[in-house]
Amino acid sequence: MDVNDSMATMIALDAMGGDHGPSVVIPAALSSLNQHDDLKLILVGDSARIEQELKAATADQLRRIEIQHSTQVVAMDEPPAQALRSKKDSSMRVAINMVKDNRADACVSAGNTGALMATARYVLHTLLGIDRPAINSTLPAIKGHTHMLDLGANVDCSADNLFQFAVMGSVLAGVVEDIAEPKVGLLNVGSEAIKGNEVVKSANKLLENSALNYIGFVEGDDIFCGDVDVVVCDGFVGNVALKTTEGVARLISNYGRQAFNQNIFTKIAGFLSLPALKNFKSQIDPRRYNGASLLGLRGIVIKSHGGADAFSFAHAISLAHLEAKKSVPTLIDNQLERFLL
Amino acid sequence: MDVNDSMATMIALDAMGGDHGPSVVIPAALSSLNQHDDLKLILVGDSARIEQELKAATADQLRRIEIQHSTQVVAMDEPPAQALRSKKDSSMRVAINMVKDNRADACVSAGNTGALMATARYVLHTLLGIDRPAINSTLPAIKGHTHMLDLGANVDCSADNLFQFAVMGSVLAGVVEDIAEPKVGLLNVGSEAIKGNEVVKSANKLLENSALNYIGFVEGDDIFCGDVDVVVCDGFVGNVALKTTEGVARLISNYGRQAFNQNIFTKIAGFLSLPALKNFKSQIDPRRYNGASLLGLRGIVIKSHGGADAFSFAHAISLAHLEAKKSVPTLIDNQLERFLL
Repeated sequence: MDVNDSMATMIALDAMGGDHGPSVVIPAALSSLNQHDDLKLILVGDSARIEQELKAATADQLRRIEIQHSTQVVAMDEPPAQALRSKKDSSMRVAINMVKDNRADACVSAGNTGALMATARYVLHTLLGIDRPAINSTLPAIKGHTHMLDLGANVDCSADNLFQFAVMGSVLAGVVEDIAEPKVGLLNVGSEAIKGNEVVKSANKLLENSALNYIGFVEGDDIFCGDVDVVVCDGFVGNVALKTTEGVARLISNYGRQAFNQNIFTKIAGFLSLPALKNFKSQIDPRRYNGASLLGLRGIVIKSHGGADAFSFAHAISLAHLEAKKSVPTLIDNQLERFLL
Repeated sequence: MDVNDSMATMIALDAMGGDHGPSVVIPAALSSLNQHDDLKLILVGDSARIEQELKAATADQLRRIEIQHSTQVVAMDEPPAQALRSKKDSSMRVAINMVKDNRADACVSAGNTGALMATARYVLHTLLGIDRPAINSTLPAIKGHTHMLDLGANVDCSADNLFQFAVMGSVLAGVVEDIAEPKVGLLNVGSEAIKGNEVVKSANKLLENSALNYIGFVEGDDIFCGDVDVVVCDGFVGNVALKTTEGVARLISNYGRQAFNQNIFTKIAGFLSLPALKNFKSQIDPRRYNGASLLGLRGIVIKSHGGADAFSFAHAISLAHLEAKKSVPTLIDNQLERFLL
């Protein structure tokens, strides 16, 4: 197998990561190979387990797959420092090493977020001008999508950090949404300049004086309206907002089920509504948004949700594929110089 | 009219506040008088406008209403400091003065939140042991309700502030939900003790050593699960979480409408589902949760949503009524001593 084909996109997958390991990663890998003709994959992990899951693979799929054996697995609750120190042959670490060694254009892991960020930062290093990497994810909006960062990597941020997040988010949203100058907003508790804490006020000034398409402060409800492409915030606020979103969605779907389960008439109405409800559910299906980008590194690292199923994990692979095709880290590197004051 | 009837609960309403002023406040006042036999109201504002809206009132309602004329109105976008300095005869200020002077047991305003908080703090002062008042609101959960504070009064908080919020929230949740020892959680980005910023880590220690029924760190999705009664956070995070909730709810209802509007079959299904959808909507109806408590003051001040309708504003009056009946500020005062280290 020729892994060095210059037209191919090579992605390393942490086959052991996440709640389900190879039983989700391998089916996702196979379906991704069908979706992307130019995709090649390196499956990193216990080779016996991986080969077992590959029994259903076709000859064409197998031709585009390489297996890299590794002996360790990072546990989902393992402290990042411990994983970094004692799991040098983990499937996660080896997958990141592939990116470092230019054997892969990107890697994807559903493993422990803290360990993934710590390892990626240690192995790949940050881009010049980036103090801290950030986690970016896509959220559904009434019109299009919103990109939001940081979602939890940095609980305390300076105005400079937020400014760097804005540059990175702008590049990523431009690539993923295919727009020239993404609208960037800074998350705050009001839209007036006097609102907010000192950090957001300082970041607001940096952004106003930048070449970014900065639209000013936005509030929590603006995340979902579609009038802003990139929402910038510190990792504490971003993580709370993201998990709040999940909680509200779960609450509403719970109430919805209850409402259709009240009596025989509402049950019949619910049955007749199945096509509409199915369409509705697919629009808010979080699996369609799986795949968070660890931005600011000298390489592409995508974090899949730990509990992702194969459909969902395949979405994270597609994101890695797109970022690799567009060379997102190089684009960020180029834009940092343009956007820095 | 005897406003000093010791069994009556007297509430002062800022009749001019909010987006709609007397046209919402007066109908809400009249329906509240029907709901609560022991309720008496002081309507504060332009007496001519108020009397005009009172034309529909019954003799019994009029018997329980007093009008207090005031000449000024705080604008919805007026800077709090300006309102405090130059609007000494505003309907908002005069309503708060009524509480200060023990002429009312509580006041309700749909006016400018910043001005209401600044004025209430200036006129009423904080309780001993409370550095800063906080805004508490009720949110729907899969089981019961969740109380959350601070929702925007304090963008920067110390661990001591968060601890005080926990005491106040615990007292309020106990009263409103009628439970003995409300479960208190501290909002963080993970449930492990190593997670979070320095402020939440310190607050966590204070809470662990307190007599509160503290359950530890909670995350954004826990707000809606019903396993925690009081969620404590700083005003920046709380405000973002609250507005994110509103944004997600709006997004989901938008998708829901689209799903039932696709074609004639989904429209028929939607029509047949009306009873179920109506029930569903009433469960997540934000009007049922209108009324935020400004806690930590030497008096009861309830903030209604600025855009509230009469149904919604009446809910805020009911909350003021309940807090007055239970003497929430006195309860907080008593608990502060018990819970402080």
